[in-house]
Amino acid sequence: MNKNWFEESLKLHKHFRGKIEIKSKVPLRSMDDLSLSYTPGVASPCLEIAKNPADAYIYTFKQNSVAVISDGSAVLGLGNIGGIAGLPVMEGKALLFKEFANVDAIPIVLSTQDPDEIIATVKAISPTFGGINLEDISAPKCVYIERRLKEELSIPVFHDDQHGTSIVVLAALYNACRLTNRDLKQLKVVISGTGAAGSNIARLLHKYGVRHIYGYNKLGIVRKTNYSSYNFVEKELLDEGILLNPKENLKTLEDLITGSDVFIGVSAPNLLQTSSIQKMNRNPFVFAMANPTPEINYEEAIAGGAKVVGTGRSDYPNQINNVLAFPGLFRGVLDARIKVITDEMKIACALAIANVIKQEELRPDYVIPSPFDKRVVEAIKKAILHLNNNKETL
Amino acid sequence: MNKNWFEESLKLHKHFRGKIEIKSKVPLRSMDDLSLSYTPGVASPCLEIAKNPADAYIYTFKQNSVAVISDGSAVLGLGNIGGIAGLPVMEGKALLFKEFANVDAIPIVLSTQDPDEIIATVKAISPTFGGINLEDISAPKCVYIERRLKEELSIPVFHDDQHGTSIVVLAALYNACRLTNRDLKQLKVVISGTGAAGSNIARLLHKYGVRHIYGYNKLGIVRKTNYSSYNFVEKELLDEGILLNPKENLKTLEDLITGSDVFIGVSAPNLLQTSSIQKMNRNPFVFAMANPTPEINYEEAIAGGAKVVGTGRSDYPNQINNVLAFPGLFRGVLDARIKVITDEMKIACALAIANVIKQEELRPDYVIPSPFDKRVVEAIKKAILHLNNNKETL
Repeated sequence: MNKNWFEESLKLHKHFRGKIEIKSKVPLRSMDDLSLSYTPGVASPCLEIAKNPADAYIYTFKQNSVAVISDGSAVLGLGNIGGIAGLPVMEGKALLFKEFANVDAIPIVLSTQDPDEIIATVKAISPTFGGINLEDISAPKCVYIERRLKEELSIPVFHDDQHGTSIVVLAALYNACRLTNRDLKQLKVVISGTGAAGSNIARLLHKYGVRHIYGYNKLGIVRKTNYSSYNFVEKELLDEGILLNPKENLKTLEDLITGSDVFIGVSAPNLLQTSSIQKMNRNPFVFAMANPTPEINYEEAIAGGAKVVGTGRSDYPNQINNVLAFPGLFRGVLDARIKVITDEMKIACALAIANVIKQEELRPDYVIPSPFDKRVVEAIKKAILHLNNNKETL
Repeated sequence: MNKNWFEESLKLHKHFRGKIEIKSKVPLRSMDDLSLSYTPGVASPCLEIAKNPADAYIYTFKQNSVAVISDGSAVLGLGNIGGIAGLPVMEGKALLFKEFANVDAIPIVLSTQDPDEIIATVKAISPTFGGINLEDISAPKCVYIERRLKEELSIPVFHDDQHGTSIVVLAALYNACRLTNRDLKQLKVVISGTGAAGSNIARLLHKYGVRHIYGYNKLGIVRKTNYSSYNFVEKELLDEGILLNPKENLKTLEDLITGSDVFIGVSAPNLLQTSSIQKMNRNPFVFAMANPTPEINYEEAIAGGAKVVGTGRSDYPNQINNVLAFPGLFRGVLDARIKVITDEMKIACALAIANVIKQEELRPDYVIPSPFDKRVVEAIKKAILHLNNNKETL
């Protein structure tokens, strides 16, 4: 981590006093303009929407707006710093939404961290928005909150820490397999970390067809004998057979990755050494994404024989960055007025990201396109619209 | 009401699909930009705010943001059309905030109309904003909601339908008195309508020093013998002696305005005729603001001898338009980081608006400046900053 980013970022935030502002789309230069955009004229779109609430998508910014909502309970790698302290991240997210996909995102940080109060609040403000992006909410409550909101709201709800990360990991693994001519579904995968990201990576990989996934977390190897120590999200992964129950003789993370093909770390710094990677199968994929200090350094992973290394950092190749997914996904979801973001859409989104890179362009240090590659958002949007052709929409 | 405004406004809203959008204030063209505005750099303002929450005013858009919040229970003159149907008004408000005073306002419409749920919701999302503008919430619950939020939040809370209208009415009356060399405090005032606007006009005029105020509403003349029929806001006006108890022999609105100097209507169409105005004192002021059809037409009021006529319409002189007050008021309040908007500030705001027009420029049809007069926002801001010089701030 370059200390300089911190100082420079502080300067930037202070200089601009935040990163986003509101902009008018309509002229306002005369009393006539006022009469059209405000009273008395504005009564007319109001009355149309009162007759048919879906007309809000025709006459208001709802058609393009997403709330980026956080209670600040799990901000970046900083932990529970509270809603207000998370505001720069939410504003940053709004900035990326706009710049990458022309989505109008509104940062909303909360004074409550109670799951039911969060749900009530999001429901109460939901008519304003075309979609809800939950952000930096701690596990496992993030899963509970997202599920209830998906059930109870008729606009799409997406918790980026769970699904954004899963989508980009799947995209990267898919391309690592394209590069090495392997079948992802046959690979043995170890996931370190069973929080918001880790648990959902397991779920999405399983949905995609991966059948050999093992988990590791603060309590050690995830196994049925520890069942009672797990939260409901972790229990479900075992119950549903998404995480397999490893042999009793395996004790350490190194034991667990021995003979595996893929390591995915969304957990804690310095869990592995070069020698650990050497125990994996030949040419393994190592995605060590703990931030700022990964489970194993890029150089050590390469030295251990890793064929493809993914990181969470912008100063190394193959950065697994959520910004590859959420702007395009919401662009497609808003354009198609999709009610519920399904696993099918997330997988389509992952493959769309992956296929931006042509087979002949793939390299071990280039399995993921740049967020600045304009084709990414377009490809995701197209994939979502295609998938949605025969689906129920808002 | 020109039917054309309706059709043209609908076209405008459809064409632009809403009236506001998000705009980035910072560059985002490279991985370095991403590292500064988003991860990893963004951790640094987050940590500063975690240490000192007030630093959100330095590093985020909170310093300039106001939530425009409505449950849609009393939208314009349209009644209870629901939150989502009120969204075009709230977006319009955001547009005016930006264009007139460079305030970044976020429209938020609610799915609940329960006062306590509204309070809980606003409190939950409040860390995001530098101020709260409540809008188009029905009386008397709007008063309850605003009072509780003022008590429980440490950012300014303002219900525009109550206070915006009161401020502009006071400004207009003040100038009508300047024009005719009268003392507002000595005048006899009749207010028709005791909803959000009417009840607060009475309160602010009383605060300013007016001592002869009578009320009229759907139940007839407001008097103590009807006490039990009134809501808590109306009861308070009688309890506190803000509304005087009229003589028992007075029966009708016309009886009540006989011998009065000022009529203020925020109530219902066609309550008065030319002959009613003739029964008022010489050269009365008639502010008939029911929308779209006023208590008495402009022409009829003039024919009855009204010296100054105010309306709620942009196609007549002296439009009592809230847009004269709220942009400048919030500009000042945000710039001074004021915690609570006091009556003193509202009165200062009214006088600032009034004094934009020089004594020699005043005319019966020009007691209120145009919202497009750039001096209005500046004058209000200066007045607020001046008033606040020795006050506790956020």
